Amino acid sequence: MCGIVGYLGKKKNSKVIIGKLKNLEYRGYDSAGIAVLKDDELVCYKQVGCISELEKEVPDNVETTCAIAHTRWATHGKSTVVNAHPHSSNGGLWTLVHNGIVENYLELKQNLKQTIASETDSAVVAELLEEKNVNSIEEFMETFKQLVGSYSIVAVNKNKPNELFLAKNKSPLYVAENDGDYLVASDPICFVGVSKDYYEFNDNDFAHIDSNGITFYANGKEIKKGKAVLDDTFESFSNAGFEHFMLKEICEEPEALNRQVRFFKEHQVLDKFQKDFMKKFDEVVFVGCGTAYHAALFGANYFRKQLNIKASAEIASEFIYSKPIFANERMLFVLVSQSGETADTLMAAKIAREGGATTLALTNVLYSSLAKRTDYIIPVCAGPEIAVASTKAYTCQLSALYMFASHLKNLDGGNVDYFADILRVAEKSLAFDMQKVERIANEIKDETKPIFIGKDLDYITAMEASLKLKEVSYINSTNYSSGELKHGFLALVEEGTPLFVFCSQSDICGKSLNASHEAISRGARQYLVTNIKQENDEDVIYIDEENELTASILMIIPMQYLAYKVSISKGINPDKPRNLAKSVTVE
Amino acid sequence: MCGIVGYLGKKKNSKVIIGKLKNLEYRGYDSAGIAVLKDDELVCYKQVGCISELEKEVPDNVETTCAIAHTRWATHGKSTVVNAHPHSSNGGLWTLVHNGIVENYLELKQNLKQTIASETDSAVVAELLEEKNVNSIEEFMETFKQLVGSYSIVAVNKNKPNELFLAKNKSPLYVAENDGDYLVASDPICFVGVSKDYYEFNDNDFAHIDSNGITFYANGKEIKKGKAVLDDTFESFSNAGFEHFMLKEICEEPEALNRQVRFFKEHQVLDKFQKDFMKKFDEVVFVGCGTAYHAALFGANYFRKQLNIKASAEIASEFIYSKPIFANERMLFVLVSQSGETADTLMAAKIAREGGATTLALTNVLYSSLAKRTDYIIPVCAGPEIAVASTKAYTCQLSALYMFASHLKNLDGGNVDYFADILRVAEKSLAFDMQKVERIANEIKDETKPIFIGKDLDYITAMEASLKLKEVSYINSTNYSSGELKHGFLALVEEGTPLFVFCSQSDICGKSLNASHEAISRGARQYLVTNIKQENDEDVIYIDEENELTASILMIIPMQYLAYKVSISKGINPDKPRNLAKSVTVE
Repeated sequence: MCGIVGYLGKKKNSKVIIGKLKNLEYRGYDSAGIAVLKDDELVCYKQVGCISELEKEVPDNVETTCAIAHTRWATHGKSTVVNAHPHSSNGGLWTLVHNGIVENYLELKQNLKQTIASETDSAVVAELLEEKNVNSIEEFMETFKQLVGSYSIVAVNKNKPNELFLAKNKSPLYVAENDGDYLVASDPICFVGVSKDYYEFNDNDFAHIDSNGITFYANGKEIKKGKAVLDDTFESFSNAGFEHFMLKEICEEPEALNRQVRFFKEHQVLDKFQKDFMKKFDEVVFVGCGTAYHAALFGANYFRKQLNIKASAEIASEFIYSKPIFANERMLFVLVSQSGETADTLMAAKIAREGGATTLALTNVLYSSLAKRTDYIIPVCAGPEIAVASTKAYTCQLSALYMFASHLKNLDGGNVDYFADILRVAEKSLAFDMQKVERIANEIKDETKPIFIGKDLDYITAMEASLKLKEVSYINSTNYSSGELKHGFLALVEEGTPLFVFCSQSDICGKSLNASHEAISRGARQYLVTNIKQENDEDVIYIDEENELTASILMIIPMQYLAYKVSISKGINPDKPRNLAKSVTVE
Repeated sequence: MCGIVGYLGKKKNSKVIIGKLKNLEYRGYDSAGIAVLKDDELVCYKQVGCISELEKEVPDNVETTCAIAHTRWATHGKSTVVNAHPHSSNGGLWTLVHNGIVENYLELKQNLKQTIASETDSAVVAELLEEKNVNSIEEFMETFKQLVGSYSIVAVNKNKPNELFLAKNKSPLYVAENDGDYLVASDPICFVGVSKDYYEFNDNDFAHIDSNGITFYANGKEIKKGKAVLDDTFESFSNAGFEHFMLKEICEEPEALNRQVRFFKEHQVLDKFQKDFMKKFDEVVFVGCGTAYHAALFGANYFRKQLNIKASAEIASEFIYSKPIFANERMLFVLVSQSGETADTLMAAKIAREGGATTLALTNVLYSSLAKRTDYIIPVCAGPEIAVASTKAYTCQLSALYMFASHLKNLDGGNVDYFADILRVAEKSLAFDMQKVERIANEIKDETKPIFIGKDLDYITAMEASLKLKEVSYINSTNYSSGELKHGFLALVEEGTPLFVFCSQSDICGKSLNASHEAISRGARQYLVTNIKQENDEDVIYIDEENELTASILMIIPMQYLAYKVSISKGINPDKPRNLAKSVTVE
């Protein structure tokens, strides 16, 4: 989490640099700060809260040749101005911004001569550089040998104010150049409008930028780097007239799903998986965190039930500590991550690889760390997702998994017209009764404990619907497998408790409805999301799609919209719910 | 769910029969009713709520030779007097009590001539018997061929008021005789003080009792039945001076764990598992519902991490619908159920058997349906558990799993002194700081969203602790794997949100504490349950046990006590939380 931006060049208004930082707000918005060079002095502005708060602090007319900026998601230390980046050493020799966690910072701190006001691990690094009297890139690299953990760092030395010192390990860092102007950022997204290509850092790379250009280092030696081409599917980051990105992204689902199919067709994404592909595996493990874990559950369900292959889904952060790990060469690991930077998922990929398993990344970001470290990539084509709560990325993940699994099914004699299926889903994706959802949003907005239930595929939808509502409305909703309700959880039900029931599978829906009836007879108010026509449909959100798998993709969309409507009715900004950041790049 | 009692004999006061019904209150307490023969007429008393409400209705001096009684957990139809049992047919020919679900009752109802006031499936059966003009056991049995579903039924015919008609399929039914008095019940527990032995019904058995005695039928023909011996570990059902059974059962944990070890030793329970036992299996699947599912997770964790055997835990109600099922002869299924009557777990056992897998029951009730239908039994020796929320049964389940797995480990060269380990756990089980737990109970009693987190084994404890609090205090607590917190759920945290963190594993505790720090920096109030000594221990519940597996057994006990204290501070009866029943005998 946290986003960093650096600039070195001829001259830019600080507003431009802060504008770039805003592209990274999805990485955290607990506090923000910028240090700009003004009359050969670094001047620092910091503020708690969103970047727009910082903007108010910085004067309009600040033109600069060198700047570093940061938007924070707090890990160590509360969200205060003192803990905001950039951090300077006590003597002011070094000022830096940092994304990551220096795991041995307490140990390093103990060995410092001076005390540090900030509680952060990052301030320790600045002070360490000063106490070692670091003044060159060689000394800079030498000092970093003491650091354990993850970091991308952009640092400025007081004595060399028109130079940037860069270090990268585990956290992302990129740099683009345009006519002598250098822009450093945590995400190439910042390079839209700046450059068509950019440099990527590998772990343990360093770099130094001055008026002569950029020099890269690895293992203490200068290296040459080629450039990567900027992804041309990057869209503009404006909210396109929508009140919020979350709404924009829900409304983009038809377009995103269409793009998902188009990309698969044009790039023949699935052709690399031929008849012998699955013969190599006895088992498939899907791994993810949060919403991506729900997509993983969907993938495992399809593989197990439709392809008859042993398959399971694991929460990445649990899986990586469940030693001894059963990863072996007869296993395929499918790693799902919107950003491709999720720390726990990256670790799971590493463990899978070390066990000899084949790895496949399903990610929205093709230049991500995850995509670089897996044997196969299936691109998710949602396009950039700015709102913290995932919407179109989730439905695109499900669609990509659906097409991938259906392709494998067809190789084995199946006959699934999966492109047509997803195009149909795209067409239907906003066809639900929006007014009814708005009415329900209004009914539940002050509730404290709505319950979401379902079985099998519908249980996955229940989990994701509940998470969505929690994320953006702060309502403490819960989700249960329908059959578990009477094993304790039913005690929560009282007069009027909202109960959302998902029913897409005609053969097992009766069981969920039985569970729901038990709750209704204890006062619950049922809302039914189903693809089965109901006589009394006042509290029914009907999804016109027979196929239970594709219905699963469609059923979550009204729930995303519900969460959005509840969020704004409560005066919350759904794009930036409290305490969260979009990509979880620390464990 | 639901409990039924029938009596036919020389004469008893209705209070005695209601007293027996009270032994079955763990099976449901939405409403209760009794029909007693008075001057050759069946007189019916019914009341909504607990059996004590019914008692107030029934006059003191009702002596009877025939009675049927029922305590209800509502499945079809709300908890009203009309829906309470016994149910009579419209013409009064048949009166009956029923436990189970007649799945085709709507279809049967449509074909009836008369309409029925009650919404229940049970009333349909009474009316059906009347409309078919059933007057003999042969006609009774013939009529039951039309029923699909589960039932244990005790019925009385108006024209033969001193006879009982009995039918059993899937729901439990037992009968004991003492000097010409017959007592029928859903659980042999009712026979304590009545008889030392009793008859068991198999599925599709019928019986008829009159002054000549009892006659059993199977497949339309008379059969002879042997008797089963009443379990002599049955204790008295008094609360032994404790205010509530839940508190009594928590305080019994040392004794129950001691008994668990003693029984294993005396009966050499583990000796049947020899060195070649595990060689038959590639994989172990643990299955359970609710609290028993948490025990299943513990079992799977131990097998996977300590025995290096592929193992997973499944929610029974999800597993049975996850077709195609991967049960085969190289798999061992361990089915965990306190009552041994949990419908979904029984179904899972059936599916496992049909796939050729070996099955093992881990249950508190050795005469239960589950124990009868598995290849192996490991007895849980908690003794009868009356409070709905499981406490001592859970710790005994964990202990039984611990000893079983440790025994297998020792066969493979391990050296675990598991008897000593559990005896030590027994000794320490109430050694936590009760006053501190009471203080914390007081602090959180009005909270609406406490959060429980942990990783790996500690995540299981978090799940069970959260469930316990929900069950008896109706507080909408939630539980997350520590690593998932920042993937959305952290949005729930605000100033003062209680966060219970479980840390028993020194190697991974840092990760949970990191997650907790992120929550604390957003306002959460941390309560730490740990076996690692802390400097500032104001909000720490310290568990003095190094071994992380046995510490897991100990860590839940203060949380059971916490749930109990919160429950009573809110004026709730923790023994009978709303909406629940102890044994979930319907899907």
